[in-house]
Amino acid sequence: MLIREKVLQAADLLRQFDIDCWLTFVRESEMLHDPMLDFLVASHLTWPSALLVTAKGESFALVGQLDRKAVDDLEVYDRVLDYVEGLQDSLIRLLRELQPGTIAVNFSQDSEICDGLTHGMYLTLEGWLEKIGWQDRLVSAERICSCLKARKTPEEIRRIQSAIDHTEDIFRMVGEWIRPGMTERQIAEFMTAEVRRRGLTPGWGSHCPAVFTGPDTAGAHYRPTERVVEPGHILNMDFGVRCEGYVSDMQRTFYILEPGQDAAPPEVQRGFDTLRQAIELARQAIRPGAQGIGIDRLAREWIVAQGYAEFPHALGHQVGRYAHDGTALLGPAWPKYARRPFLLLEEGMVFTIEPRLTVFGRGVVTMEEIVRVASDDAPYLTRPQKELILV
Amino acid sequence: MLIREKVLQAADLLRQFDIDCWLTFVRESEMLHDPMLDFLVASHLTWPSALLVTAKGESFALVGQLDRKAVDDLEVYDRVLDYVEGLQDSLIRLLRELQPGTIAVNFSQDSEICDGLTHGMYLTLEGWLEKIGWQDRLVSAERICSCLKARKTPEEIRRIQSAIDHTEDIFRMVGEWIRPGMTERQIAEFMTAEVRRRGLTPGWGSHCPAVFTGPDTAGAHYRPTERVVEPGHILNMDFGVRCEGYVSDMQRTFYILEPGQDAAPPEVQRGFDTLRQAIELARQAIRPGAQGIGIDRLAREWIVAQGYAEFPHALGHQVGRYAHDGTALLGPAWPKYARRPFLLLEEGMVFTIEPRLTVFGRGVVTMEEIVRVASDDAPYLTRPQKELILV
Repeated sequence: MLIREKVLQAADLLRQFDIDCWLTFVRESEMLHDPMLDFLVASHLTWPSALLVTAKGESFALVGQLDRKAVDDLEVYDRVLDYVEGLQDSLIRLLRELQPGTIAVNFSQDSEICDGLTHGMYLTLEGWLEKIGWQDRLVSAERICSCLKARKTPEEIRRIQSAIDHTEDIFRMVGEWIRPGMTERQIAEFMTAEVRRRGLTPGWGSHCPAVFTGPDTAGAHYRPTERVVEPGHILNMDFGVRCEGYVSDMQRTFYILEPGQDAAPPEVQRGFDTLRQAIELARQAIRPGAQGIGIDRLAREWIVAQGYAEFPHALGHQVGRYAHDGTALLGPAWPKYARRPFLLLEEGMVFTIEPRLTVFGRGVVTMEEIVRVASDDAPYLTRPQKELILV
Repeated sequence: MLIREKVLQAADLLRQFDIDCWLTFVRESEMLHDPMLDFLVASHLTWPSALLVTAKGESFALVGQLDRKAVDDLEVYDRVLDYVEGLQDSLIRLLRELQPGTIAVNFSQDSEICDGLTHGMYLTLEGWLEKIGWQDRLVSAERICSCLKARKTPEEIRRIQSAIDHTEDIFRMVGEWIRPGMTERQIAEFMTAEVRRRGLTPGWGSHCPAVFTGPDTAGAHYRPTERVVEPGHILNMDFGVRCEGYVSDMQRTFYILEPGQDAAPPEVQRGFDTLRQAIELARQAIRPGAQGIGIDRLAREWIVAQGYAEFPHALGHQVGRYAHDGTALLGPAWPKYARRPFLLLEEGMVFTIEPRLTVFGRGVVTMEEIVRVASDDAPYLTRPQKELILV
């Protein structure tokens, strides 16, 4: 079971990073969902709850009485404790028993997936530890959380592959179905209906799929509009599905033939080829030990050298339980990305590669492929788009 | 529009509490969703973003370039600023322009709905403010967030009422449909299908509806099982739907007649009557200025005085965009509830009242009604259950 695998992996990481104890501290997890909970429980935790893993490989769950049975059912935790009135006493008793020198909790300035602990909960925990003089034992669990996310198990890769396979199927179906005169909204509805028919859910919450046709479309996080697909347009889509908790995140580019055309005009084809080459350039440089900033630069500079504007976002991000997952990033050294572009790539990471460029008067060319970092290279998990999809 | 109403309400609250500026600071809001965002935007914000409201009634949104158009479309913010590389400079520039003496941010030890700011984001903001010597201007926005949640507008009440109406309909349908021999899981599936048929979603994420039949069932947050409905059982359900973003949260109690019975046996009827009286006792005491701890005590002591065990949770919570919403609580002075049972009730709050008691050998009697705190009393929004539903 995935939760058992991840709890074991966490214990290994604690030893690797020389941290004694990892504590995930949450309440009302349906409202405020620490991303790490996906690896620790299969249900929501309502009252304040603490999930602990130690470097010795022990695991403990302290939860409200009403949540206990769902946690017992996991058969993952060595000890499950429950309470009715307050968590503080049993948590402090357990910590005194374990005597950890360092207690890692889920906060991080650089990485949102490692930052599930709210500030109020941090203050509460700090206050409890102050009473026993242990407040200085709190450290960030960023490295543990990052690695738990990054080091995908074979089961996690299988689920991502399954989400990708569905996504490619649906891209194929919609490519055969689109006709000039349809609106962005109609195209999105066709795809959403197919996602539902397969018993899946969209890969992310707002604007999945995102559909953009023609020149001067809105920003990449905008909803499909009533804009009509016209001959001569480049049309692009950003789309993914969630499959057993794991998502795909892919983009594909279509060209709408004008009467008499049997291929895209040269400037559209050149845009496509340039982007295709940028992706392949980047992919060939991805391997364990490389830095994302260098990978991003290869694609970014290639596109600019061909005379196109620089894309206003990172080249690629990790994918997992969220479309934007993981800490290490294929991105430039912009302040908002903090240290993420400088982290070393590791085997087991799954990245998108998604540059974009604009063909003046036609639209935006984007492809988003997904690769897995292997021991010495980065094979595609997607079947990469090698030709414009002609409508 | 609700967002406009809530931003105006926020400005009023800032003046009331003598705070100069309210700052909601988020990133990747699909992954880590500050509950206050529901009142501030209609889409997810991907890159670090800041939403500000001032006591003067001004409002500002600083968001990533790709998210800008969706925020512009709201037509709520006086000024929308976007960025590509980093947020820090434009945020500090704006704050210098506004010169707030206090900057309230969303953290709270007592209340999860006021605690959407992660610890990592708090540290980032504190670090930025330190550079201009303003770190001491940060204060908790708990009172603002609590009041925004608590003081329901007529539009919010209308949406909750609509969710309640659907819930009551579905309880009625399932009550007519249940037969002995069905399993908890089958009953839950019938209700879930009806929720879907109406184009709604469940009121909460896990185990909605929760269905429990007979004695010795699992904790209240457990999934429906293969346990079979048998004559002589008390059956109870916890169920709600989401309707235009607002939820209901209700419980109902059924009794399964044995052959030859045309009414519940006396001990079951007595349990039902005791619970019904506990709810009505509590409701009659709810009014602005009362404290939740006193309301909880009335119902709790009544039930214990009738010889039943004390229920192991609070008597009631607020309802809104979440099934468990708001800060003020009808609850006992248990550590996990912090100061929440001591806060004064206010007009506009919407509360559940949900005691429970066990009838030995039969099952658990629970009803959960919803009331609105009015100027001097607390009328039901639900049609309260006055009789056992006999199957």
